[in-house]
Parts: sequence; structure tokens; C-alpha cells
Amino acid sequence: MEELRNRQWLLARRPTGTADVKDFTLNETTFSIPDLKPGQVVLKNSIFLLAPTIRNWLDAPGNNFYPSIPIGAPVLSPAGGQVIASADARFPVGSRVSAISSWQDYEVVDTTERGVRPMPRDSSDVDAMGPLGMNALTAYFGLVKIGRPKVGETLVVSGAAGSAGSSAAQIGKIMGARVVGIAGGPEKCDWLVSECGLDAAIDYKSGALTEQLARVCPDGIDVFFDNVGGSTLQAAVDNMARFGRIVLCGQIAGYDNSVPIPGPQNMMRLIYGSIRMQGFLLGDFEEQLGEGWHYLEGWLRDGTLVHREDVRTGFATIPENFPALFDGSNRGTLLITAD
Amino acid sequence: MEELRNRQWLLARRPTGTADVKDFTLNETTFSIPDLKPGQVVLKNSIFLLAPTIRNWLDAPGNNFYPSIPIGAPVLSPAGGQVIASADARFPVGSRVSAISSWQDYEVVDTTERGVRPMPRDSSDVDAMGPLGMNALTAYFGLVKIGRPKVGETLVVSGAAGSAGSSAAQIGKIMGARVVGIAGGPEKCDWLVSECGLDAAIDYKSGALTEQLARVCPDGIDVFFDNVGGSTLQAAVDNMARFGRIVLCGQIAGYDNSVPIPGPQNMMRLIYGSIRMQGFLLGDFEEQLGEGWHYLEGWLRDGTLVHREDVRTGFATIPENFPALFDGSNRGTLLITAD
Repeated sequence: MEELRNRQWLLARRPTGTADVKDFTLNETTFSIPDLKPGQVVLKNSIFLLAPTIRNWLDAPGNNFYPSIPIGAPVLSPAGGQVIASADARFPVGSRVSAISSWQDYEVVDTTERGVRPMPRDSSDVDAMGPLGMNALTAYFGLVKIGRPKVGETLVVSGAAGSAGSSAAQIGKIMGARVVGIAGGPEKCDWLVSECGLDAAIDYKSGALTEQLARVCPDGIDVFFDNVGGSTLQAAVDNMARFGRIVLCGQIAGYDNSVPIPGPQNMMRLIYGSIRMQGFLLGDFEEQLGEGWHYLEGWLRDGTLVHREDVRTGFATIPENFPALFDGSNRGTLLITAD
Repeated sequence: MEELRNRQWLLARRPTGTADVKDFTLNETTFSIPDLKPGQVVLKNSIFLLAPTIRNWLDAPGNNFYPSIPIGAPVLSPAGGQVIASADARFPVGSRVSAISSWQDYEVVDTTERGVRPMPRDSSDVDAMGPLGMNALTAYFGLVKIGRPKVGETLVVSGAAGSAGSSAAQIGKIMGARVVGIAGGPEKCDWLVSECGLDAAIDYKSGALTEQLARVCPDGIDVFFDNVGGSTLQAAVDNMARFGRIVLCGQIAGYDNSVPIPGPQNMMRLIYGSIRMQGFLLGDFEEQLGEGWHYLEGWLRDGTLVHREDVRTGFATIPENFPALFDGSNRGTLLITAD
């Protein structure tokens, strides 16, 4: 059996606060294709999506609702690559797929447990992981199926210059909403208004968010698409219109803390405002992925959806690039191509 | 014009913590029926529903989502009585109605602003305000339209021995759910199981609620109907099943505090659990009240719905009876009949 060189980034210790390169160890081992059980495939990863939620998976076990990566194990991560051995007829050898794989060159995965999905045909790896990828699909389903903004309603998106956020904001425009983005710094805010066509952008670094939202959304927020949580979510709750909907997509403000941050205070506002707050995962819409790709591909083709990918190169650089998600220094979907 | 004796309980000062009799002043004045504007009626109140949310209305203004009763004004309250003058053809003189009136014998109200509704025909005042009243209707719509338990799912109700809670729990049984009530003390828990037919009841005073819920709901909570909030809501969030729904009906744990209590921590559980948390008001279902009454009257007639009313007598006793809602000493819907 051929022995393949397999590079791995292993979890060396659990981060306290922001993950640091020292929390990971580069390991080199060999990989041989094993006998596969039905439903398994072997992936050769060529591109890694650095997603904020990976930070949650680095924490110690203690809840039963998301995975905890064991110390010494490769770091779980969304990735894209090729099937090089298959015991699942839906994903034959040679097919290009995305999955929750891990920071290593090769991995055996169970296609169901790891959300293996075909990459859209004729897409580049970067498009498949970026404007047609997990974050864009998450934005599509969260907004279209859960937030459901109506024409003329006000949609506010936090983390609006990010990968999921910029998709959600622009899909909101396509749906006919008035869209306000929240982002950090003038460059991102300018990009949201001048390139992505948002109606307004709020720089959360430039003043108290609750008051800024009240000023920009005098009739209240009908739909809040939240990637941030914490005090950002609180500021939005304080400004929700009656019958408002809060789409819980991510809570990045809380990922770098070892203790959970409080949810919004004053639940009475949710009651008296008849407000719906709803979490979801992309996997909830597994049966409808085709619909999401159909629209996203159309908008990508005709240039309706502005997107940017922050593509960096080199398997060895994964851990040093990961913190960019949390310090706001990345510009768009953060992807690392294996070399 | 005839002068009527009008007793009033006025808000003397804003309570800190639990409302006390000293926070209110009994006043006696006269009332003459004025010229009414279209849409107004004059109510002669005969029965008052002591509802926990009145406590919220006693707080200083500071939000725009529920009313703040001015110092010196009669205390707003759900009440039932008779229309003695009318400029709204839907509510002719002599008709029996419920409304958000106030702690006084007579009041001019705008029928739309104050949610004036007919009492169900042939019902007693107590039935109209109790098993067919605001709390029962709130339970009906919250559970049937928002929580939507499916046959075999697990429904947990907090404040389950209370007015809305006991209705919600029993409607859950009618809908085919497995129903667990949370209440304070063995008497209430016994009543829930032996009289109301719940599958189990948890005495929150007898041990940590999170662990008790985990034991009684090993497959998680599918629907949580919450009247309590605070640490009770947190314990439920920690035990929600995937795709769970949290119906925010009331948050009594927070009413007696001058500062808002935190909502549930760890929003990530809502995301990874694909959980929906939703507030509502009875008024959202104004067009469907007939449906609610139809079912509630049927269940009342055939004895399906067990209910208890805690009827106390005497307009003068309203403030001294109000704290019973918060110390858990009332048994069922707390009603005061005017003498």
C-alpha cells in the first residue's frame, strides 16, 4: 500500500482567550488508504476554510451540543478537496467535495457525520468554498428561511463585512429590504455601502451601538442577522421593531472567552415585542442545498453578489492566520490553500 | 348628570422590589359619564384579574415597549365588567366585557387601545376571567400557534400551577405531548399530576433544576413554555432538544427587580440546537380569539380542563392580595370581585 506524506496540525493545548500558534503542533506522519466501511470516503484536502466556530471546538468538553477536539488530535475544520477512495456511491473517486474535515492532508471521514457535500460543478475551489460555500449558504438559508425580511423592512447584519455577513446583507437587498451593516472601521463600512450596495453601515468602533442603531433605524429593526452576539446582540434587541426576528448565525464575541457570555438582558422586550430569536445550522437545510446553490450561482454569474476572499497560501500557515478572524484583520472569506 | 361614587387605587410611589400596600393609595372620587368619542365606552368594573405583568407597569418609564403607570394615576389592570355607556356599536350598553381597565369602579376606555373584548356568552364572570380569560387564551395561542408540540414530544411548563401555566400544560396533554410541570412545593406538584393529569411535576425548591430536568427529560425538552425566566429559563435552555421551541409567555422572576435580569447564557446552544425562542402577546391573535374560546369552552364544558380560581372579595383588598402572585401563595387565577 502506498504511503502518503500526511501533514497535520494537532491541538497541543486548549487556548485561553484568543487561540495562539503555540496551541497547535505541526506533525508529519504517513497515511495509507485503509479498507473503508460503507459511507466512508478518503479526502485529500486542498483548501481550508478558517471559520470562527472552530474556536468553540477547541474548548474542553462540557456540553453535548458541539464537538470538543481532543488534545493531540487534528483540528476539525471545514475544508475542500478530492475524494481519493470511496465507499459511498454518491461521492466517487475523483469527485470534488467540501466537508468538516480537519487540518491535515488526508482523512477518512464518514460522509453523513462530516457533512460531505459535492462542490458545485464548474466552480473553482475558491468559489466553491467562498461565494458558493458554507458561509454563503448559511447566510442564504438563515435569511431566506428564518429571518424572512419583507420588501421595505429594515434588516441589520452584524459582522457585515465578514463572509456570512456580507452575503446575508446583499441577499437582504435582493429581497427588497433596507439593509444596514455593522462592521469595524471605515474601510469595511465604505466597502459595504459603495461596493455591496447597502443603505447604511455603522462602525461599531465609532460610538455606542445602541444609539447608532436608534438613529439609523428610527422605525426599529425588523430582522437582525447576528454573527457577533454579546453587547452587539443586546444593542439590537433594544432596537427591535414589533414582530422582529433575530437570526442567530454566530456569536463570535463569545468564542474567545472560556466562560459563556450572557445573552440579551430583559427578555420582556422579546415578549412585549413579539420577537422571535432563532438559531440554526446549515445542516438543517441539507435537503434544500440545491436551492441555495441555484440562487447563489446565478447571483455570482451575473455579478449581483459582491464577494471577497482572503486567500492565503501554505498548510504551515494555518494557525498563524486563524486569529485574523477575531482581530478583524481579514477581508472576506479566509481561505488557506495547501501547498 | 348622575354622580357615581368611584373608588380608585392610585399608584403612590414606584415599588422597589415586591410591590407593597404602601405603594398604593385608596382614593374616593365621583364619576359622571362624559360625552364619548367614537370608539370609547364606559366600563363599570366588577372583577379584577391580578396578573404578574402589572408589576412591570409600576416601573418608571424607560422603555417604549410596555406602559408605565404615572404616579398618582389609577393602576392599570385586566378587569371585567359591564358597558354602561358606549360610542362603539360592537359593545352596546349592558354588554359584559373584559379589558385592560384599571383599579377603579368606573373608567372611560378606548376599545382598541385597551383590548376590550366581549365576555363569552352564558359564562359567569369568574369563568370569563378564569378558564376562558386572558391567561387561558394566552396559554392556548402560545402553545398551539407558537410552541406547537407534536404527539409524543416533551413539553415542559414553568409556573405550571399558575393560571396560564396550568392551562398550557393541560392543552399540551390534549395535543398528545408528554408534559412536565415545574412548580413550587409538593401541594402544587401533586395537584398537577393527580388532578391535571401531567406526566410529571418538578418541585424547583427540592433541588437543582438543571439536573432535575435532565433526569425527567432524558431526551431533552422539545417545547418549553416559560412563565418564569431567569435561572428557570437557563435550566431549560441547558436541556433543550434539537429543534426545540421556547415560548416566552412571562418572566415573573424578573418582575420584582428594578434591573433587568440576564437572559439565558450561552447563545451557542440556541445556534447548535437550532432552537427558536419566541415572545408574543395575546393581542397578536385578536383575529383568532373565537378559535381559542371555541376550544376552551368545549374543554370547560366536558371537564377536560381542570382549573382553579382563587377568588377574593373586596375592592379595598386589591393591593394586599397582589403580592400573592410573587410569593407563590395563590392557588390558580387570582381574581378580586368588587363589593
